[in-house]
Amino acid sequence: MSDASAPGPAGLFTLADYAAGAQRVLDRDVWDFVAGGAGEERTLAANLEAFDRVRLRPRVLTGAGAPDTATRLLGRHWAAPVAVAPMAYHTLAHPAGEVATALAAGKAGVPLVVSTFAGRTFEDIAMAASAPLWLQVYCFRDRTTTRRLIERAEQAGFEALVLTVDAPLLGSRVRDLRNDFRLPQGVEPVNLTGTGFASPGRHARAEFDPMLDWSVIDWLRSVSTLPVILKGLLTGADARRASAAGVDGIVVSNHGGRQLDGAPATLEVLPEIAAAVAGACPVLLDGGIRRGADVLAALALGADAVLLGRPVLYGLAVDGEDGATQVLGIVADGLSEAMTLTGTAVVADAGAELLQPPATRCATPRAAGRPGFEDPDTSYWPHS
Amino acid sequence: MSDASAPGPAGLFTLADYAAGAQRVLDRDVWDFVAGGAGEERTLAANLEAFDRVRLRPRVLTGAGAPDTATRLLGRHWAAPVAVAPMAYHTLAHPAGEVATALAAGKAGVPLVVSTFAGRTFEDIAMAASAPLWLQVYCFRDRTTTRRLIERAEQAGFEALVLTVDAPLLGSRVRDLRNDFRLPQGVEPVNLTGTGFASPGRHARAEFDPMLDWSVIDWLRSVSTLPVILKGLLTGADARRASAAGVDGIVVSNHGGRQLDGAPATLEVLPEIAAAVAGACPVLLDGGIRRGADVLAALALGADAVLLGRPVLYGLAVDGEDGATQVLGIVADGLSEAMTLTGTAVVADAGAELLQPPATRCATPRAAGRPGFEDPDTSYWPHS
Amino acid sequence: MSDASAPGPAGLFTLADYAAGAQRVLDRDVWDFVAGGAGEERTLAANLEAFDRVRLRPRVLTGAGAPDTATRLLGRHWAAPVAVAPMAYHTLAHPAGEVATALAAGKAGVPLVVSTFAGRTFEDIAMAASAPLWLQVYCFRDRTTTRRLIERAEQAGFEALVLTVDAPLLGSRVRDLRNDFRLPQGVEPVNLTGTGFASPGRHARAEFDPMLDWSVIDWLRSVSTLPVILKGLLTGADARRASAAGVDGIVVSNHGGRQLDGAPATLEVLPEIAAAVAGACPVLLDGGIRRGADVLAALALGADAVLLGRPVLYGLAVDGEDGATQVLGIVADGLSEAMTLTGTAVVADAGAELLQPPATRCATPRAAGRPGFEDPDTSYWPHS
Amino acid sequence: MSDASAPGPAGLFTLADYAAGAQRVLDRDVWDFVAGGAGEERTLAANLEAFDRVRLRPRVLTGAGAPDTATRLLGRHWAAPVAVAPMAYHTLAHPAGEVATALAAGKAGVPLVVSTFAGRTFEDIAMAASAPLWLQVYCFRDRTTTRRLIERAEQAGFEALVLTVDAPLLGSRVRDLRNDFRLPQGVEPVNLTGTGFASPGRHARAEFDPMLDWSVIDWLRSVSTLPVILKGLLTGADARRASAAGVDGIVVSNHGGRQLDGAPATLEVLPEIAAAVAGACPVLLDGGIRRGADVLAALALGADAVLLGRPVLYGLAVDGEDGATQVLGIVADGLSEAMTLTGTAVVADAGAELLQPPATRCATPRAAGRPGFEDPDTSYWPHS
Repeated sequence: MSDASAPGPAGLFTLADYAAGAQRVLDRDVWDFVAGGAGEERTLAANLEAFDRVRLRPRVLTGAGAPDTATRLLGRHWAAPVAVAPMAYHTLAHPAGEVATALAAGKAGVPLVVSTFAGRTFEDIAMAASAPLWLQVYCFRDRTTTRRLIERAEQAGFEALVLTVDAPLLGSRVRDLRNDFRLPQGVEPVNLTGTGFASPGRHARAEFDPMLDWSVIDWLRSVSTLPVILKGLLTGADARRASAAGVDGIVVSNHGGRQLDGAPATLEVLPEIAAAVAGACPVLLDGGIRRGADVLAALALGADAVLLGRPVLYGLAVDGEDGATQVLGIVADGLSEAMTLTGTAVVADAGAELLQPPATRCATPRAAGRPGFEDPDTSYWPHS
Repeated sequence: MSDASAPGPAGLFTLADYAAGAQRVLDRDVWDFVAGGAGEERTLAANLEAFDRVRLRPRVLTGAGAPDTATRLLGRHWAAPVAVAPMAYHTLAHPAGEVATALAAGKAGVPLVVSTFAGRTFEDIAMAASAPLWLQVYCFRDRTTTRRLIERAEQAGFEALVLTVDAPLLGSRVRDLRNDFRLPQGVEPVNLTGTGFASPGRHARAEFDPMLDWSVIDWLRSVSTLPVILKGLLTGADARRASAAGVDGIVVSNHGGRQLDGAPATLEVLPEIAAAVAGACPVLLDGGIRRGADVLAALALGADAVLLGRPVLYGLAVDGEDGATQVLGIVADGLSEAMTLTGTAVVADAGAELLQPPATRCATPRAAGRPGFEDPDTSYWPHS
Repeated sequence: MSDASAPGPAGLFTLADYAAGAQRVLDRDVWDFVAGGAGEERTLAANLEAFDRVRLRPRVLTGAGAPDTATRLLGRHWAAPVAVAPMAYHTLAHPAGEVATALAAGKAGVPLVVSTFAGRTFEDIAMAASAPLWLQVYCFRDRTTTRRLIERAEQAGFEALVLTVDAPLLGSRVRDLRNDFRLPQGVEPVNLTGTGFASPGRHARAEFDPMLDWSVIDWLRSVSTLPVILKGLLTGADARRASAAGVDGIVVSNHGGRQLDGAPATLEVLPEIAAAVAGACPVLLDGGIRRGADVLAALALGADAVLLGRPVLYGLAVDGEDGATQVLGIVADGLSEAMTLTGTAVVADAGAELLQPPATRCATPRAAGRPGFEDPDTSYWPHS
Repeated sequence: MSDASAPGPAGLFTLADYAAGAQRVLDRDVWDFVAGGAGEERTLAANLEAFDRVRLRPRVLTGAGAPDTATRLLGRHWAAPVAVAPMAYHTLAHPAGEVATALAAGKAGVPLVVSTFAGRTFEDIAMAASAPLWLQVYCFRDRTTTRRLIERAEQAGFEALVLTVDAPLLGSRVRDLRNDFRLPQGVEPVNLTGTGFASPGRHARAEFDPMLDWSVIDWLRSVSTLPVILKGLLTGADARRASAAGVDGIVVSNHGGRQLDGAPATLEVLPEIAAAVAGACPVLLDGGIRRGADVLAALALGADAVLLGRPVLYGLAVDGEDGATQVLGIVADGLSEAMTLTGTAVVADAGAELLQPPATRCATPRAAGRPGFEDPDTSYWPHS
């Protein structure tokens, strides 16, 4: 992976640098489409703030040496517990689109989750990929379309299905309404061509199915042998239902703050969900990851891996494949640094004891003076 | 109802857009009279902030399909659990005043609560209305005036009385004092003409009765057979007294932050009041509703419906009846969207489990590690 | 008392208006001396913020009518539970100094606490006064000076001694250090003339006695028969010691944020102190009162009365005696309004149930679902 | 010590004044190197905010008189419980570098912890010193280098070793990356000359040893008889391990926010660590001390002394030895003032009862109404 001390072309050192760079090069309405969220963007902001509030507890003299950021998920090796989150139209950020992202993900050794609304064909993406590819799936009213997409991705070598379940309708994205946003010339959902879903210039408000229920999992099993991961869960109750339905993984997600404005930050609900799943399947999280230390925080609160979204597009916008590679490298390097400074030798060692409970700000008088108080009561964090 | 994607004349998408639009078209002192609150407007701000802090928990794969926002209150069908709050002088916002509002409310299928200080006659308003009309009542020292107003409204077809009980005097509205606010030419409390309460240009500081006690309810029963709703309750103790007095409904209200500056936000006291009433009568709430999701939050915390105030006047100011219709439509559409995304099929399904308790920010060590913690302990929200 | 709707000469409606007016008319260094606090003025700000956070719970239909703001303390009638706090050199704000303040306090029917560093003689002040006068006392190393001051005030008709106990040294007032503040020509501690303490132009850093202990109370008793009130207590432990020492009253005070920067807001420690005193003597509070509703909040949390400081000087600066009268009137009118809107008929009725506990922001899961929770658990506020 | 009322050359009264002064005279990149922290500087800010939030409880009439700020640590007299924290290259701030600092520390009667990356030789520093000198040690991969440094310092009369354990690698300092920071001509780690670690112009990213474990303490014992203090602990668990390993002291530190961004504020973890150590060895703290009252707060929460870092360099930058002397004087004077106003006669008297728990902001209903509540439940602060 890249070394943060060997920055990209324009002296960019942080994911915020790449965001600022992307904002400079992208058309305003495209920037808004990528960067924006639903409503007043409260959930978008909450995702970030939840990580900002985390306090990681350094541990010293562990003798751990350089940490190993690698992990295994669904039987595959990941160089870091990070994948690229599904996002529509990488071609908005760079003409090479998902092909560039796949090359970058391959260099980083991490999976790419390809959106149903990808701007490049599954086949082109697969050709470029050297790390696992997963397919993000919307289950349309017209199941035939969905089934054909799955079959095509499966044939192209995709390894898992990520069913988005938080979009019975599309959230109200006020920036896009104000901009009357339409897809630029040449940006299209190329994998939907000929299906009736490909809009001629507007972002396809595809025929999402608001009647979807848990039986969709059985249907997916009936059309594909790929592992099925549910994306968009925010409650322990739903996570238990997913677990009972035998899914192969779940993604704690509020759709990057793009669906229900006012939904909780993903990090805030992660402990509840991790406790509900209780190890029955991998738990991933997206929303708000902007530093390597954020990955460690998510692991400590119960995630097995995270998905990184917008920053990867910002990297693409700034410098194509190299930019996306840099962005993934900054996150991996930061994770390695945070693991080193917290004495976390391997990913599996990240636990709740890494986190400082927000006790000082809100302790009650009776929280103290009890046996065992000297150490923060890590049972506070359900994932322990 | 309107579709948020088919905006009004000026590309207005949110209630904030309508507020900004109204501020542009209204005279400064009229804007201040409508938008302002008592004192330093701490309660005005608190009403909004309470909703800003709410976190709604999405639920997925419920198979609910498109939600039904309709409800029944006092034996009548409401297209949504929303009514127009009583406000003086809609004619300040638009010459058509309450007549335009009544037409808009009718289109939206929701009731209008007409103020004693309405700028149009009860009869004109009733003529335009197709949804229920309620009369907001101040009980003056001169009860004859109050009785005559009630009788007149009853004859015009009004269906309920909403007695304002939080105004033994008028709160100190500093903006109006600074502006030396006087009603513009042509704006008058036309239903008070000839009663001695109609001031010739100043907002009538009518002869409120500071001696009012709970016997006023019996008096109202003695002069009218209409249902009696008390507006302006902020404590469980008062709600229990109201319930014991047999009222037909209560409105949790701090008068939109216009009476006691420093009073709690209505949403903050709603759980306490809902628990005190315990279903004995409908509980409504006003103050701070600025999004459809806010309606759902109020329902989840125990309200049966909400009243929407200033934003309706802003709609009137911007575009008369159409503007008011748009505003009501934005709220109803937002409610529908929030219900869809939280898997809430019907209004009656909204419960405390929809809300994310503010646990992460303030949890105590002992809140965790206990059986059942995986799911947020919704008993936190008394209305469960 | 004045009516807030009949404002002073410049359309001033709030205490903030008078502060702004005073800042305009006073020399910068005088303004800084009056308005400033110790260190970074964290305690100064905390005093205000504590009141800003208070939420008062309106009560309705109590039939209370117009409230009575009067109270009795140390055997005397006060028109409102408010006195003028001891402050040095009212002559900094207006040439008439404490004489003007005494006239204003007399009109308002409230006591004036005269500072040892008054700019006018005790005799001149007493001549103008029609409400009780108290003497603020610093116990100097040279007790003879202190004794003579007390004797002189007693002869002039002063009714109580207020011993300042929070000043074993003077706090570091950074604004004054930066300004190299010196008293303007003509502003002097006239009651200290000839004692060796009267500085010729600098604010007298009098010879405070850092060795002072609880025996000072016995010494005061030995030199005067006047009631002794201790000012500057911030802990329950000290309040209990004061109570055990038989003082006639205590003032919860952090010296208006002018001594230890970082000391708690007075309102925050009031419940603890009221509980410690348990009615053994009156408890007064100063620091941060800027509205009539603040007085009610202090009463609800256990104060018997409050002292109003800087705003009275601001009134003096803006309009002499009339300005000070206006300021006291705004506070009394605001108290009356707040009492009316909370259904508080008399001062003695103000109790903890008037306050909304900060539950929503910090509730723990277990705070709910228990019997009696419907009403806020007012036992939270120790003074109940 | 200096008297805060006799300020330095430019009317500087607070440590913030010295920071502003230093920013004016230092080159931008040098300022950034000194003032900056790791990542987004969240931990840097948290250190300061933790002290800003402290509320100290004044006590009155204790008869304590002028306090004694002196203490004893490792068998030596300290004029105040403050030492100069180890910082690299004082020569960045002033050509006299650590020699000037040693002279200032001597005047103040407090120890100086000399960095391995000092800009002046240990011998020159020792020549100037009149108060204890401690050596800050990085344990390099090449232990010979480390051993030689220790031996040299020991010969020069240094009295203790402070092993930095929070730097298995150097944290990512974004400001320095952006500035491409290099040491100015003439600023060098002169005590590393000839060791292979002395970089010719860049800040030496020395060969830190990421494999370090608790056996390093035995190794230090094997090469030196000096007391061994561990610096960089942030958890009770590590403090217990250190205590079990028989260290002579620990420093609660996050490296001034320069290592893991997102680590807790030192003051927040101090109670946990003090409880874990339970008096087995002295506990020191650095990070965020910017006032004398902050020293008292740290003592009250369990520290035996604090280290003062950047402000000393700011003093050096502004006025060389005199500036550093002023800075140490401001802190000592402020400590004395805070001790006087809280009735703390000697350093050993500082305990948890000096601190106002953050109860009002976060109290739960059940925190009140219980026996003993009148006084804040100081058991909240584990160090009691």
